[in-house]
Amino acid sequence: MIERLCIIGVGLIGGSLARALREAGACQEVVGAGRNAGNLQTAVDLGVIDRFETDLARAVAGADMVVVCVPLGAMEAVFAGIRGQLEKHAVLTDAGSAKGSVIEAAQRAFGHVPEFFVPGHPIAGTEQSGVEASFSSLYVDRRVILTPLPATAANATDRVREMWQAAGAQVVSMDPVHHDAVLAATSHLPHVLAFSLVDTLSRLDETDEVFDYAAGGFRDFTRIASSDPVMWRDICVANGDAIQLMIEHYIADLQSVSEAIQNQDGERLLDIFSRARAARDRYIDKQGRSG
Amino acid sequence: MIERLCIIGVGLIGGSLARALREAGACQEVVGAGRNAGNLQTAVDLGVIDRFETDLARAVAGADMVVVCVPLGAMEAVFAGIRGQLEKHAVLTDAGSAKGSVIEAAQRAFGHVPEFFVPGHPIAGTEQSGVEASFSSLYVDRRVILTPLPATAANATDRVREMWQAAGAQVVSMDPVHHDAVLAATSHLPHVLAFSLVDTLSRLDETDEVFDYAAGGFRDFTRIASSDPVMWRDICVANGDAIQLMIEHYIADLQSVSEAIQNQDGERLLDIFSRARAARDRYIDKQGRSG
Repeated sequence: MIERLCIIGVGLIGGSLARALREAGACQEVVGAGRNAGNLQTAVDLGVIDRFETDLARAVAGADMVVVCVPLGAMEAVFAGIRGQLEKHAVLTDAGSAKGSVIEAAQRAFGHVPEFFVPGHPIAGTEQSGVEASFSSLYVDRRVILTPLPATAANATDRVREMWQAAGAQVVSMDPVHHDAVLAATSHLPHVLAFSLVDTLSRLDETDEVFDYAAGGFRDFTRIASSDPVMWRDICVANGDAIQLMIEHYIADLQSVSEAIQNQDGERLLDIFSRARAARDRYIDKQGRSG
Repeated sequence: MIERLCIIGVGLIGGSLARALREAGACQEVVGAGRNAGNLQTAVDLGVIDRFETDLARAVAGADMVVVCVPLGAMEAVFAGIRGQLEKHAVLTDAGSAKGSVIEAAQRAFGHVPEFFVPGHPIAGTEQSGVEASFSSLYVDRRVILTPLPATAANATDRVREMWQAAGAQVVSMDPVHHDAVLAATSHLPHVLAFSLVDTLSRLDETDEVFDYAAGGFRDFTRIASSDPVMWRDICVANGDAIQLMIEHYIADLQSVSEAIQNQDGERLLDIFSRARAARDRYIDKQGRSG
């Protein structure tokens, strides 16, 4: 049981966690924190949080669990703002989509990575953002990856794991470098590709016409290009090396498809497309198990 | 009113057209044709067609409307098979996703592009294929592009337009070269990108894990990679020049995103991502009008 949960950054991710924990009876009080009082008041009105503070020191006072759900680029400033203000028994975690950069931010802000800090990443979300889009079942059957360091207190990791489990998630642990490589492949690269495709098309001469003749598949394919640009800018800066590596891989593969097209090499194209369809169908089957 | 409709290739596209026209009372009899008698019998059992022929000459006998819905690579053989067999008053059209190559196929098979042939392309479909996936409302409020040539009989174009309108579609006319450029951008490129992404990921060392941690957005993004590989091989061969040009555009833009990531140029990334989101949201709003 969490006595006082402090959510710093009450948007889709933080708001949904607060809703889930309240609904599960897993926390007694939720304090929201952030810079925008209007947004925080909305969160109170929606019943997502009990009260809010715009001052970070006041926000974390008395909290036994502090979850930082701000864009990656704002992590270090938040850490600096709560340094020395946390309760002795408090556990600190975050929900950033890249882990190496958050760990570095903690190191810079605190002087070392605190033993009570458990880096985390819920693999959930939609292209929506903001507390209005939050809902209590966002994490049900979703993965949450924790990337504790050797120095991280086992007890802190346990408490963060229990929190996410109470929200319905499946929690796994992973090395932060490995996390960043896997996420670069499976989430960061696709987002970059989708943003890039829509941007390419929007700069063609006949843009209006192009979008006019886009069919249903295009809408699905580009849905993730409606995601929050600030969040994705921060991810690309924070996990740049891993993302760049994946882009290089991808461009090489795409160039080889392009060559096959140039050579009218139908056999090779059929090979690639069949292998891709089989891989995706295998993946869909796997996902079917956990919904 | 169509007296006898002949659908050559009874899958998702041909089957859905037959269903729609029957439901609208816009045709009296539907004859299916193809090479696979088992599939055609399924189409009869499902009530999609009245009867079938596996011999093309017999299939088109007595038909006043012949619609060829086979993969692009099979067009020329079908045209050769029906050459000299069509009724004098018959109109011929197709549903191929690229138009230049179909027109060339007709030219080779018939010796010239017949005046009764109206090249066409319904912008509809799902990643499913086969007559079992067909449904009568597939074309409702969807675009159908016709690309008649100067020599095409106006009366033939009118009859094909009326057919698609009876199926619920919005019919527009376009130059075939322009059609192929627009579709390369809006449909062919995204499919190549999706196939290529899944293929890239499926050849990483930790493939299982990669797909394990893929979230909802990835499923949407890669849905089109579950499309029929044969159909897409044919499209890539048939519309190769236009697709290659789009891939080149895309790689150049992606490389510039990659550079911005390398330089940690957050401003440039935010610019690109914001522009893309705005373009997509504008497009979504437009589509909202027609559902």
